[in-house]
Amino acid sequence: MVTLADIEAARRILAGQVLRTPLLAAPPLSTLTGAEVFVKYENLQVTNSFKERGAYVKLAALSADERRRGVIAMSAGNHAQAVAYHARRLAIPATIVMPVTTPFVKIKATEASGATVVLDGETISEAQARAEAIAAERNLVWVHPYDDPRIIAGQGTIALEMLEEAPDLDTLVVPIGGGGLIAGCAIAARAKKPSIEIVGVEAALYPSMWNAVHKGNRPCGGATLAEGIAVKNVGKLTLPVVREFVRDIILVDEPQIERAVNAFLTLQKTMAEGAGAAGLAAMLASPARFRGRRVGLILCGGNIDPRILASIMVRELERADRIVSFRLTIPDRPGILGQIATRLGEFGANILSVDHHRLFLDVPAKGAKLDVTMETRDAAHAEEIFSALAADGYRPVRMPSGTALE
Amino acid sequence: MVTLADIEAARRILAGQVLRTPLLAAPPLSTLTGAEVFVKYENLQVTNSFKERGAYVKLAALSADERRRGVIAMSAGNHAQAVAYHARRLAIPATIVMPVTTPFVKIKATEASGATVVLDGETISEAQARAEAIAAERNLVWVHPYDDPRIIAGQGTIALEMLEEAPDLDTLVVPIGGGGLIAGCAIAARAKKPSIEIVGVEAALYPSMWNAVHKGNRPCGGATLAEGIAVKNVGKLTLPVVREFVRDIILVDEPQIERAVNAFLTLQKTMAEGAGAAGLAAMLASPARFRGRRVGLILCGGNIDPRILASIMVRELERADRIVSFRLTIPDRPGILGQIATRLGEFGANILSVDHHRLFLDVPAKGAKLDVTMETRDAAHAEEIFSALAADGYRPVRMPSGTALE
Repeated sequence: MVTLADIEAARRILAGQVLRTPLLAAPPLSTLTGAEVFVKYENLQVTNSFKERGAYVKLAALSADERRRGVIAMSAGNHAQAVAYHARRLAIPATIVMPVTTPFVKIKATEASGATVVLDGETISEAQARAEAIAAERNLVWVHPYDDPRIIAGQGTIALEMLEEAPDLDTLVVPIGGGGLIAGCAIAARAKKPSIEIVGVEAALYPSMWNAVHKGNRPCGGATLAEGIAVKNVGKLTLPVVREFVRDIILVDEPQIERAVNAFLTLQKTMAEGAGAAGLAAMLASPARFRGRRVGLILCGGNIDPRILASIMVRELERADRIVSFRLTIPDRPGILGQIATRLGEFGANILSVDHHRLFLDVPAKGAKLDVTMETRDAAHAEEIFSALAADGYRPVRMPSGTALE
Repeated sequence: MVTLADIEAARRILAGQVLRTPLLAAPPLSTLTGAEVFVKYENLQVTNSFKERGAYVKLAALSADERRRGVIAMSAGNHAQAVAYHARRLAIPATIVMPVTTPFVKIKATEASGATVVLDGETISEAQARAEAIAAERNLVWVHPYDDPRIIAGQGTIALEMLEEAPDLDTLVVPIGGGGLIAGCAIAARAKKPSIEIVGVEAALYPSMWNAVHKGNRPCGGATLAEGIAVKNVGKLTLPVVREFVRDIILVDEPQIERAVNAFLTLQKTMAEGAGAAGLAAMLASPARFRGRRVGLILCGGNIDPRILASIMVRELERADRIVSFRLTIPDRPGILGQIATRLGEFGANILSVDHHRLFLDVPAKGAKLDVTMETRDAAHAEEIFSALAADGYRPVRMPSGTALE
């Protein structure tokens, strides 16, 4: 069992090796949630996630013989980059096994750190089996992403730093994948401040720790924005710690995760991947649960695909009716498009795109369809424009959110 | 003339009123530029820019009578939000004059802070004239965005904090609008460390300080991503400081600014507006100038329109050939689209959008045009796919970057 002493030792090992990331008050998020929010910016680590802490503590503890033999890990994400980066710094050969479905950009980032990448297995569990086979065959040291005392101790240093800077925190909200981060943080925080409350967060699509703690049977699976915590098997070492120290586990759905990613971006000007925003998502999911409390969030990772991030930002503008798409059926004669565009201009709507179709079977032979995407000030402004078009004799039909980026 | 003592006094005034933002080593930006880069995250202030520092120092110095009368400022940007936010905290009535062209979201943010917003003037100079008239009429205290000793002293506290945490910095690279930020930082930094080099940055479209220092005559104007430093008139107080302390002024063009915004986002996971990324843009523009040096960058603001940011991110992917658009002319008979889509799938290209047209006059009567946007691994991958399509008898024509978001 990992102790406070282990975590304090890990902290000495990490000094100067990973960033001591800032913990900062986040007034805009406090306004949003009604709590007093502090954010620990682990996304500022070199490989943009907290995973470096555990990885470095594990690697630094290896014997000279183990270092020579080298290490192996299975991961398509932040753990892979963290192990590859620090293995290179310590001149330890690293092999990373990734499923064949891993996005090329992640493979490239891991190879750029000097690791040998082996692509094998259609699924995580196939890749896992392959990685175990290679480890046995080549006598490599296994670096588990969470179920290892040194990994847990490394991640726990985050809570030590947080409580040193903000000793009056009431609650830590911590994302749960396999449980390494929350186990380390719970042990450290409760030892330092027994009254502190530890709340876990899982993606509703992957409630594996929730199931383990509540003897539940919710299904695990599906595509989540929080792929960093999409874990089906919780740790043998982490589960008892969660049972003992974690008050409750909040399950967050995809729209809540998406909203939290967007809030970090627009309010705090920082990039959170889905798992990194899970803590904030939990606050958005259960605002009453946190109101008036001093809450520490761990923004544990910032590795989100730029295309997905761009799409989230545009979808959020659509939800706020700042980008609105609609379809009009218009008589197909010269001048109509000009009239409508002029009308939109009078109302201060900024046209982003126009598609003009004349071929659909559901359009009268002399008619055309006009799809317009426009930028508006807010929902009231959009309504005002629709009313004006209706008064002009058109029947604008709102198109669903998501249309603008298609 | 502002002195180190004024800036140290400003620092005591600001304690607990604005965030002491982190200064952090940025290894990914060091790798990108070949220098040792440190970033001061002023985008984490509540209104997401450094402007709060000068504004608070100015407001806190007002007499009881002046506070009762209230303050006025002219700004469509960060200065407006900074003045509005801290005026409300100090219970000082604030009037902000903005040009009528100001985006609604900025008006709303400023009003949300409790300021009275007056929309007047088609241009900045018309709005300025109107603001001066209102100030005289209502006897309000003018809060200048840069040409005021207290504003300069407030902005200079940034350099004090930077040198305290990283005393061995060789160079500060500082964006220049009217010159308040660089004047304050230059006075503080050179007083603390006479050997430090101060380099200024302006958008090439607005080289007003460069003109003033070099008696140049370059034109000022045009749409820039760095609207926060798009200033035509430099300060009377700031110009002599720049003349005395600033080694040189680097002019950065729009693609460099865009690349820097994207680098902050993808490498440091943080949002920089154009002006906020100008320092990094200067390093990208003149890498040899900075190579091997310890460089402090001030990420002075993070207020960038989400739609523009989304578009920058996608354009950058297109530049890296990770998103590629092309057009094919194909025989218009059943099954062709399926063949091509299958071919792209075999090569691991992810199709993002397909447009299929049959009506263009330049297409043979029995032909159709197919516009495809696909996600590829890199330029080599895109070339491989084009070669395969050519071998199949098609003639793929690359479409210009920017197509994907249209």
